[in-house]
Amino acid sequence: MKIGILTSGGDCPGLNAVIRGVVLKGTMTYDLEFVGIRDGWRGVVDGDFFPLTRHEVKGLSKVGGTILGTSRTNPYEGPRGGAENIAKTLYGHRIDGIIAIGGEGTLAAANRLYNDGINVLGVPKTIDNDLRATDYSFGFDTAVNIATEAMDRLRTTGDSHQRCMVAEVMGRHVGWIALHAGIAAGAHVICIPEVPMSIDQIAEQVSKARDRGRAPLVVVSEGFTLQGMDEAYSDKGLDAFNRPRLGGIGEVLAPEIERITGMETRATVLGHIQRGGSPSAFDRVLATRLGLHAADAVVDGAWGQMVSMQGTDIVRVPFEEALGELNTVPQYRYEEAAALFG
Amino acid sequence: MKIGILTSGGDCPGLNAVIRGVVLKGTMTYDLEFVGIRDGWRGVVDGDFFPLTRHEVKGLSKVGGTILGTSRTNPYEGPRGGAENIAKTLYGHRIDGIIAIGGEGTLAAANRLYNDGINVLGVPKTIDNDLRATDYSFGFDTAVNIATEAMDRLRTTGDSHQRCMVAEVMGRHVGWIALHAGIAAGAHVICIPEVPMSIDQIAEQVSKARDRGRAPLVVVSEGFTLQGMDEAYSDKGLDAFNRPRLGGIGEVLAPEIERITGMETRATVLGHIQRGGSPSAFDRVLATRLGLHAADAVVDGAWGQMVSMQGTDIVRVPFEEALGELNTVPQYRYEEAAALFG
Amino acid sequence: MKIGILTSGGDCPGLNAVIRGVVLKGTMTYDLEFVGIRDGWRGVVDGDFFPLTRHEVKGLSKVGGTILGTSRTNPYEGPRGGAENIAKTLYGHRIDGIIAIGGEGTLAAANRLYNDGINVLGVPKTIDNDLRATDYSFGFDTAVNIATEAMDRLRTTGDSHQRCMVAEVMGRHVGWIALHAGIAAGAHVICIPEVPMSIDQIAEQVSKARDRGRAPLVVVSEGFTLQGMDEAYSDKGLDAFNRPRLGGIGEVLAPEIERITGMETRATVLGHIQRGGSPSAFDRVLATRLGLHAADAVVDGAWGQMVSMQGTDIVRVPFEEALGELNTVPQYRYEEAAALFG
Amino acid sequence: MKIGILTSGGDCPGLNAVIRGVVLKGTMTYDLEFVGIRDGWRGVVDGDFFPLTRHEVKGLSKVGGTILGTSRTNPYEGPRGGAENIAKTLYGHRIDGIIAIGGEGTLAAANRLYNDGINVLGVPKTIDNDLRATDYSFGFDTAVNIATEAMDRLRTTGDSHQRCMVAEVMGRHVGWIALHAGIAAGAHVICIPEVPMSIDQIAEQVSKARDRGRAPLVVVSEGFTLQGMDEAYSDKGLDAFNRPRLGGIGEVLAPEIERITGMETRATVLGHIQRGGSPSAFDRVLATRLGLHAADAVVDGAWGQMVSMQGTDIVRVPFEEALGELNTVPQYRYEEAAALFG
Repeated sequence: MKIGILTSGGDCPGLNAVIRGVVLKGTMTYDLEFVGIRDGWRGVVDGDFFPLTRHEVKGLSKVGGTILGTSRTNPYEGPRGGAENIAKTLYGHRIDGIIAIGGEGTLAAANRLYNDGINVLGVPKTIDNDLRATDYSFGFDTAVNIATEAMDRLRTTGDSHQRCMVAEVMGRHVGWIALHAGIAAGAHVICIPEVPMSIDQIAEQVSKARDRGRAPLVVVSEGFTLQGMDEAYSDKGLDAFNRPRLGGIGEVLAPEIERITGMETRATVLGHIQRGGSPSAFDRVLATRLGLHAADAVVDGAWGQMVSMQGTDIVRVPFEEALGELNTVPQYRYEEAAALFG
Repeated sequence: MKIGILTSGGDCPGLNAVIRGVVLKGTMTYDLEFVGIRDGWRGVVDGDFFPLTRHEVKGLSKVGGTILGTSRTNPYEGPRGGAENIAKTLYGHRIDGIIAIGGEGTLAAANRLYNDGINVLGVPKTIDNDLRATDYSFGFDTAVNIATEAMDRLRTTGDSHQRCMVAEVMGRHVGWIALHAGIAAGAHVICIPEVPMSIDQIAEQVSKARDRGRAPLVVVSEGFTLQGMDEAYSDKGLDAFNRPRLGGIGEVLAPEIERITGMETRATVLGHIQRGGSPSAFDRVLATRLGLHAADAVVDGAWGQMVSMQGTDIVRVPFEEALGELNTVPQYRYEEAAALFG
Repeated sequence: MKIGILTSGGDCPGLNAVIRGVVLKGTMTYDLEFVGIRDGWRGVVDGDFFPLTRHEVKGLSKVGGTILGTSRTNPYEGPRGGAENIAKTLYGHRIDGIIAIGGEGTLAAANRLYNDGINVLGVPKTIDNDLRATDYSFGFDTAVNIATEAMDRLRTTGDSHQRCMVAEVMGRHVGWIALHAGIAAGAHVICIPEVPMSIDQIAEQVSKARDRGRAPLVVVSEGFTLQGMDEAYSDKGLDAFNRPRLGGIGEVLAPEIERITGMETRATVLGHIQRGGSPSAFDRVLATRLGLHAADAVVDGAWGQMVSMQGTDIVRVPFEEALGELNTVPQYRYEEAAALFG
Repeated sequence: MKIGILTSGGDCPGLNAVIRGVVLKGTMTYDLEFVGIRDGWRGVVDGDFFPLTRHEVKGLSKVGGTILGTSRTNPYEGPRGGAENIAKTLYGHRIDGIIAIGGEGTLAAANRLYNDGINVLGVPKTIDNDLRATDYSFGFDTAVNIATEAMDRLRTTGDSHQRCMVAEVMGRHVGWIALHAGIAAGAHVICIPEVPMSIDQIAEQVSKARDRGRAPLVVVSEGFTLQGMDEAYSDKGLDAFNRPRLGGIGEVLAPEIERITGMETRATVLGHIQRGGSPSAFDRVLATRLGLHAADAVVDGAWGQMVSMQGTDIVRVPFEEALGELNTVPQYRYEEAAALFG
């Protein structure tokens, strides 16, 4: 059997470890043959493949990024896209199935292709931890470690200057990175997309921390929407055109916090450093295990499913279970953490 | 209600984060009062207590070690030990219950005290991850990260000199640190207490890696017993008196590997650096959550139980479930990893 | 003798190590007495002092921030400011001299106070390494390490997506952090205040790296001014009022690079994480040694001077040598590095 | 011109950065041609060369180890060794000169070959910082960082258990790593080869720290010789045969300290993790600059010299200046540090 592997969507520490896991188990235990697919679905559509042997995956468990490249191409678009064309392309290269490593969009495309008759197996990948049907996804632990270390650094500066520090972390739709890094770094306010807050509520928390003699630390997901922000902008005569120029939500919050509390406030947007570089040990182990089990699943013909982590086990779940809704932070998890800054 | 908190057994990153979680939730949400117990069960027996307020736990989530101190004292030993004496001591200080943060020995003592009528709640703590009834325990992730980073460093030296490098990691009875760090660092041989191996088997794996052009990396748990080691020593005329002087098992393996494979081999015993210092973000979150839930459990009167991690949740389990047998590496988990160095 | 210690200006890893070095040497070797001055010159003016003993500086060599607090107050301003008032305040507290740990502004104020008859000794402090008369200043090495590690992470993402990554680092007037972190991380373009470049020159370097199959990495000091930027903005109808809203120079460069090269480009502004947190070993050693030698200098009555690093030695230089001009990156150092991306 | 590059002696972070610096400057600025020499002088003797282009050194500034391999071969030994044979071998491959990156032994061999008519240029390399004529050598800063971080971890465990912790670091003949890491981590005793101490002196320092409420931290160079150790062993009836089996000096000190002070004491031997892995930013910059200047020196025909760091500059010094005596820790530097633990 010849199997193609692709990585799709944003960069994520652990992608290479998955690839290594698949190839080592597949070649040594099952005698499978592999090809790398360049730049995600783009490579499937264009037939851009290259042989992937044990030699190519040497030493990859610690290496950030993806040796396969990635893109955000939709396999159903363009003149060579669509299930029928792809089936022909794969057949032409004698490729029996695809392992697609990616997030919600990638897995949705994988599911559609599977329903259209293509053999696809999924491996969940999301920095934000926003996929259901897996306890955690690789890359998330690394991102939380990086955000936590950055906030550890911001705290000493906050303390030295008696400043409020605002850290904006990743999380377009869900607040997991902010929640976990906020708990780990001892943040005094955690602002996530799932829990609407007004600037006055945030400022009140900041003031309470300040009044206890602390230098307040605020962590905010990039996808957090401030209640009443639209009104605030229109009060200032700023229209939609100007808003994106104002930078991330962290840079929106800082001056508002300073205005209300009177406390000097600085924002830092952590940005891309959260999704690059060498994975944490946790992510290397998780990614490697997902890769090993993906090879098993291929041999079992378990197409239309993804491998996933549940407790300490790697299991298989149908694509549908992971799709549709995002894995948001449940109310009880937010309240659990909120008890820390009471 | 007044509650005492103690930490017992070996040092472990995250102890302070548990203490902070308990105290913040307990004081702010439930209006509990806390005392710190100095040096584990020693402080219980001696009545060595001090007030523990929100102020004392400030900033502790990232701080390694334990502000309470620790010891390996058995609460049933000595003239002031035993359930009856301890009950009097606690009553004298108006302490209503104890939260004991510790490993197998600590929890066994906690259980016995509970059965003898003392209010005790447990929080599992083990670097080695050898406790049942919890998916992971805090400290383990930090230890695996440290061991992995150390092995990443050893690998470059192995490659430069075409040497075999042996890393001895913690794990007196179970091989979890060796297994996870070995997967993460891409080790070629993983030697754990649960899986007996002879020196010839190890040397064969080393030779195979060498023959593929790799600098072999061997990770070994301190508790690994080499099959046939006793015979080997007696062949050399070394008796039991001399053996402990030979250092850790890593230092035993290295010269034997070199002798059989002819490959220059060096051992490094990572030792105590695996159990000190600032916890990883994962361990800070886990430890904090265990602390928060321990405060809940106290209020619920859930004595005789320990809080534990299952999947993404914190649950309560009776002491008995965690005791008796250790959480060893199951055969299928070892074989899963073995597929990597086939 | 009673000596006051203050830290002034922006946060910098190593401040606490200096304080510890001064106090340990001063109390144990010379029997000096110390007071901490709160929040830089603000505390001098307000007479905000507290006893500083060996106990207070325990364990500080690794701790980021400053236990003394800091501010940007000018000691010559306000009703209680000025040399005469300060002399009275110090006399009132029987303080014989001040050790001022700070950057250009702090040392200029220190020099003026010294010329006005106050005993002041300086310790150079600048993240940016912009002070003359010292080979390096503490905090710089830590900042370069943090920036380098961040860029290591950005590179893997650049490679995975075939993107150009732009990293904005600290350096308002000098490019040392960009130069050193750029060399360390293997940047393809280094943009510093000392070396004017046009967007076309930058884009050409980016294109050359891309054409060699690399994902280009651009590092830019916050103080870099793009040649022709004013014209570019006025072409777009943006006036001075709007410009600061556009964020850092990194965010200015990225879209321009993308426009010219056609290569997807992303900017990350590292910001405050470069100046907080635990110092590197180099900075701990340098800061501690400066502190030790500051205590010697006090005993020698070497007021009006600062301690500084030259080669492997700590020496004393008059304030004037450090003031006036900044320590900019010399042309030959920039050209040296430019040979790497030829 | 065709130039060979070799790395010789023990592994050291920054070797690859030197190689990259030489090749980038040499090929792009000067149009030199390079060959890699495999495994140090072994490759010179055996004529084991391979083309080294810009492509081979891509991304190497952060990569630990050496892509050239290394060995401890003496070029004057063996049937193909000696200046005459080597001259023939080099001539046969049209190699005009050699850049030798190595420590004292390597540079001594390089000097002898130079005196015998071979074009050799040196780049100093020593983890231990034991070479004269250079302020620092690359690899040293990384080693000090690793040792410091390890000791930060040991401290929390010492504090939790009220134990004395002993850390053995590298330094066979000189104590630089122990001195710098000891200052950085706040050690209470620093034992280096240059400063003889008896076990009683060490124990006294330990007791003093303990009496001040500290958990004592002792750092010891591997090359430290305890005064009176020979007598101590013979008192115990241990002969020379048994002594090396006792492990490093750290493992010798720990039980003695425990015996005298009555304080539980644990030793950790850091070992090879100090010399592998990715270099610190400081070492990457230093190594890269040495490489760049080595290319300049080749073009200038500055054979018989080595490039070296003095202050912030890279200069050239004749081999002789670096040879003969080691760069030991001078008395005043040790006393400077000793003031910290008074």
